[in-house]
This record gives sequence, structure tokens and C-alpha cells, in this order.
Amino acid sequence: MSDGLPLVALTMGDVAGVGPEVIARAWPDSPLRDLARPVVVGSAGVLGRAVSACGIDAEVRVIGRPEEAEPTDRVIPCLEATGVDASAVPPGVVDGRAGRAAYDFLVAAIDLAMAGRVDAICTLPLNKESLNAGGVPFPGHTEILADRCGVPRHAMMLYLPPPIDGPGGLGVVHATLHVALRRVFDLLTVDLVAGKIALAAEAMRPLLGGRTPRVAVAGLNPHAGEHGLFGDEEQTIIAPAIERARLDGAVVEGPIAADTLFSRALAGEFDAVVAMYHDQGHVALKTIGFDHAVNVTLGLPIVRTSVAHGTAFDIAWRGKAPRTDSLIAAVRVAARLSGAKARGPVSVG
Amino acid sequence: MSDGLPLVALTMGDVAGVGPEVIARAWPDSPLRDLARPVVVGSAGVLGRAVSACGIDAEVRVIGRPEEAEPTDRVIPCLEATGVDASAVPPGVVDGRAGRAAYDFLVAAIDLAMAGRVDAICTLPLNKESLNAGGVPFPGHTEILADRCGVPRHAMMLYLPPPIDGPGGLGVVHATLHVALRRVFDLLTVDLVAGKIALAAEAMRPLLGGRTPRVAVAGLNPHAGEHGLFGDEEQTIIAPAIERARLDGAVVEGPIAADTLFSRALAGEFDAVVAMYHDQGHVALKTIGFDHAVNVTLGLPIVRTSVAHGTAFDIAWRGKAPRTDSLIAAVRVAARLSGAKARGPVSVG
Repeated sequence: MSDGLPLVALTMGDVAGVGPEVIARAWPDSPLRDLARPVVVGSAGVLGRAVSACGIDAEVRVIGRPEEAEPTDRVIPCLEATGVDASAVPPGVVDGRAGRAAYDFLVAAIDLAMAGRVDAICTLPLNKESLNAGGVPFPGHTEILADRCGVPRHAMMLYLPPPIDGPGGLGVVHATLHVALRRVFDLLTVDLVAGKIALAAEAMRPLLGGRTPRVAVAGLNPHAGEHGLFGDEEQTIIAPAIERARLDGAVVEGPIAADTLFSRALAGEFDAVVAMYHDQGHVALKTIGFDHAVNVTLGLPIVRTSVAHGTAFDIAWRGKAPRTDSLIAAVRVAARLSGAKARGPVSVG
Repeated sequence: MSDGLPLVALTMGDVAGVGPEVIARAWPDSPLRDLARPVVVGSAGVLGRAVSACGIDAEVRVIGRPEEAEPTDRVIPCLEATGVDASAVPPGVVDGRAGRAAYDFLVAAIDLAMAGRVDAICTLPLNKESLNAGGVPFPGHTEILADRCGVPRHAMMLYLPPPIDGPGGLGVVHATLHVALRRVFDLLTVDLVAGKIALAAEAMRPLLGGRTPRVAVAGLNPHAGEHGLFGDEEQTIIAPAIERARLDGAVVEGPIAADTLFSRALAGEFDAVVAMYHDQGHVALKTIGFDHAVNVTLGLPIVRTSVAHGTAFDIAWRGKAPRTDSLIAAVRVAARLSGAKARGPVSVG
């Protein structure tokens, strides 16, 4: 790109949620444009309203192609990306139009990234109920990305950057994600878990400056099943998956009881954790470091990061300032990963 | 009791684990005896070995009845409580004799508490596999206590005391505990969850200085099911249980997505959380505050607290110093709860 910074598409997410305000409030912060060349993919009308509502001194400039983006502290370039009248959506409630629009923003950004016309996508939150109400047949971002990019093997990683910007941090990859807890038992297989270990190791390497990641795998049951006393998935699925990943060259330990694993990982013993289900990883990371966590989709041919927070309907469009830390962290990680992708596979350090 | 301090029985737990060393190392700390009159229920031979191994300048004095306990910084009173030759158990491994002995220690202490001869029990960790190898037909402390005390309605609470000693802190009560995750779906009922909410509210009141606790209930599924998109237990079980508890006078909110709930609770929004399964609560609390957490059994006619850590076979008896914070915190909470129990029901503040 012209100034050497990666062109990062910010998808606006659910227009009834905090996404537009987060973009508006983060915009004056220099980190956003020091790290990347951001372009919003969304609704210029809604973004303009968010800019006014937040009292931000900037203009939303509608552009036709991402290559035209010339972001400054006073100019927010925006690609119109939906036929839905997003401006008519009321704030803070589930609305099928908002769900549909969020889907349109995301699909437009994916297609630009797949065509090499943006270097990375960074997404603001959507609402899964609105998505459903809008007739979108996917439960969330990750599933839409996987489908649109045509990849069968993918994973969601929550990444907690190190306190000081640089190589390091902790990635938590989820073996299963947006499914009823009851369904996890049908979905977990040796293949699935071994694949997630491999994705975790591959994803963390560039974030560690090329060093080989140390991966830990959580058990599914209390005390990781205590050797079969409380469930046997550790023995029948997780341990064989670890063995397979190890044969493939991964540095990996487990299954380890989830309740002791995260404090060990956060103390620096591991670089990545593979959690078996959504709340196992999310409870740990959101309890300790919600504001700075970044969501990264692994296994895609494109770079995609996301803020780790939700639509926060309870505070959206009410003059309450949502945090912008997560967006800035997500753009930073997107920029780093797109640089790594552009340079090709990282050699083993 | 003679000096006004509650007589607290410390059960030694699994002799192959860190329990004996934790007692020995904590002993010289004045908080232990400023708060309570501690008496060890265990094996004097093993305790003597731990005292030597830790280089503690104290004598283990075998006594016949708890009333004889006269603990000082140089004298550790100990009731011999097993016929098993605990001294023959090798360190750091699963052994049925250690499991049996741990069970004997606990049962002796329960019987003393039920007879009003000690004011509270504070337990050091046992190993569930050793318990099983010793032919004990219970998976853990909580289940043994419930059976021996003859209570059908009980719960395990992890309590995180406030940073400065005094009223406050956060209690996390578990609706289900030491069972395979797969079994949780059969165990959760409206009755069960409503009962745990009531126990949580009742238990926290004396720890809050008599104030009415604000209880939050976690969902079971990701995003608390997102209104039925990912599972329906929130609608069929958890919400009706909350409604019932509310009618019974509890101040309670939920179901709330577990991954956002704990940071809200830790920020002071709630006094207690009811978690649906072991790892939901344990991952949150152990990730952020393992060393100071205290385990409290609710619904018993006696007071029982426990350290929140395990047997730590990997460091036991190897000259590595286990932390003593959790034992001191557990004795502090036991003393506070036994005082509240002695004074009778606390009036609503």
C-alpha cells in the first residue's frame, strides 16, 4: 500500500450495538492510524450519526473502492456495503435489518480481503439473535468467515497481548464454540482436537516472533476427569489428539484440569491453550483481561481479528462511552499478522 | 472455649500430598492462632516428619480429646485419628492407605463437630483417586460431609475474601460438582438450582456482616443460550429457579452469560454467583485468585471450610514450600462462620 501500512477493513457490526460508537471514539487515537490504514465497511449514515453523538471532530467520507482510503484524524473513509436501510434500525434492540446489514458488511470485507484489495479485516461485534432474525443461516462471525472462505478447518482464538506491545501473549483456541454445551460431546473427536492444536501452534508463532509455541490442552471434565473418575473424554479423545499433534511436531502438554491451567498459562508456562468449549476459555480470559483481548480467526486464507466484547445493547447509543482498547488491540494484531502473512511462512526459530 | 477463640479441627488430608507441610509451615504464623485454637486431626507421625522436613521449631503433642488442645507457636496438638499406618505411605503418589486415612481424619473431625466438641472443621486436601483406591465410596470432601451429617441439600462454595479482612468478598456456589460434564444435564433441575440460590444467599449473609446478598446465576450454555439459540436449559430450568428463589425473598439476577458474569461480580456488582458446573466457577476464581480462595460447604449443621488448592503431588515432600495463604484464609473464614453460627441466625440488616 502507498504508505507501507496495511489496509485494514473495519466492519461496523450490528448498527444497534456499540460498534459504530467504538469506531468513532477510537478514531482520534493515533495508534489506530499509526498501525494501519483503516477503512470502515458499513453504513456511512449510521457512522455519521455515531461521530456526531460522540462529539468527534471528523467527517465520514464515502469512497467507492478501498484503494481510495486516505484516513486522517479528520477523515473516516467508509465503503457503503449494504442495501438495507441501516439508519432506520432503533438502538439497543434485536432487529433483523441490523443482522442482515452486519452480514452484508462482513461479506463485503471478506470478498475484498480474498481479492487482496485489503490486507486484513477487523470486525466490530454483531448480535447473534439479530443475525438469526435477519435470516442469516450462521450463528456468528467465525462460521460466516469459514463458509465464505471455503475452509473446513478453522478455529477461534482469543488472544491476550503482552502488557507491553511486542512478541508474546497468550492465545486461547476453542475446540467447539457457539453450540449448546450439550452438543459438545457429539462434536469432540481426535481429528478435531488435533487440528485445533495445530492451528493454535501455527497462529501463535508469528505473534511470538517466530519462536515455537508451547501449547497446553484443557481437559473437558472437572480435574481433567481425574483419570477416568469423572468422565473419559480425556482418555478417549484428548490424550490421543495430543499424541498425534506431538508426532506432527507440536510442543504440547495435557490434558490439564482447566481450573489450574489458565493461571499456569498466564504465569508464562504456555503460549497457547486449547479449550474444549466456549465458556472454558472465555470465562478465564474475560474474567481477567476483557478489555485488551483480541479475537483472531485461525485457518483462513485472510487475516481477521475482532474486538472481544459484544454489542453491549445496554449501553449502546446512550451517550455512555464504550471502551476502545479492544479495537485498538485488534487493529494492532491484524497489522502484525498481515505483515507476517505478506512475508510468507515464518522459519522455525 | 477457654480463651474465647473457636476450636478449629484441621484435618490433615492426604498424607502423600502437601497437607502436612502446609500445616507445619503455617504453624509459626500468628494469624493461625490469633483467629482460632487449632487442633490437628491426623497422624502425629506424619505431622512430626513434616515439621522436621520444613525446619519448624515445634513439637507435635498427641492429645486424647480436643478439649485438651493448648496450641502455642511451639506446640502442635494432634488427635490420632486413623488405624492405617500413614507413615508407610510414599510421598507424592496415589495410595489407597492415604485415601483411607484421609477419610478417617475427616470422619473423626465431623463426629467431633456434630457433638459440639469442636467449633469448626478446616480441611487440607485429599486426593480423589487415593480415596477411590482406599475403597471410600465418595468422590470428595463435600459428599462425605453431606452423607455423614445426613443433609440432602448442600453445596460447595468457593469464597474469595475481600483484599482487606472484613465483611465482603465473593462466594461462588456450584449447582453440580464432581461429576462428568456429560452428567450435568441429568442433574440440573429447577429444585436443585433454586436450592443452591437459597444456600448461597444464606451462607453469604454472615460474611457480609448481615447485609442481604445480591446473587447472580450463570447460564449453562455459551452467551447463556442467547435466548434459545444455543441450548434451552436457561429457559426451562435456570430462569424458573431464579423466579422461585425471588418469590422466596432472594435478591437474584440471571441467567447471565458466565464469561461476562465473573468480571461483573468481581467488580462488586454481586456478592454471590451460582455456577452450573465445577469448571465454570473454578476456572474463574482459580484463574484470578487461587492463593486466597477458601472452600466452604453450605447446608451442613456444622462449619466446614477448606483450602482451595489440591494435594500438589508434584511438589509434596520435596523441600519445596507450598503456599500457606489459603490455609490461613480458610481458618479465618471458619472462625467467622462459627462465631455467626454460635450467635444464631443473623437478623436481616
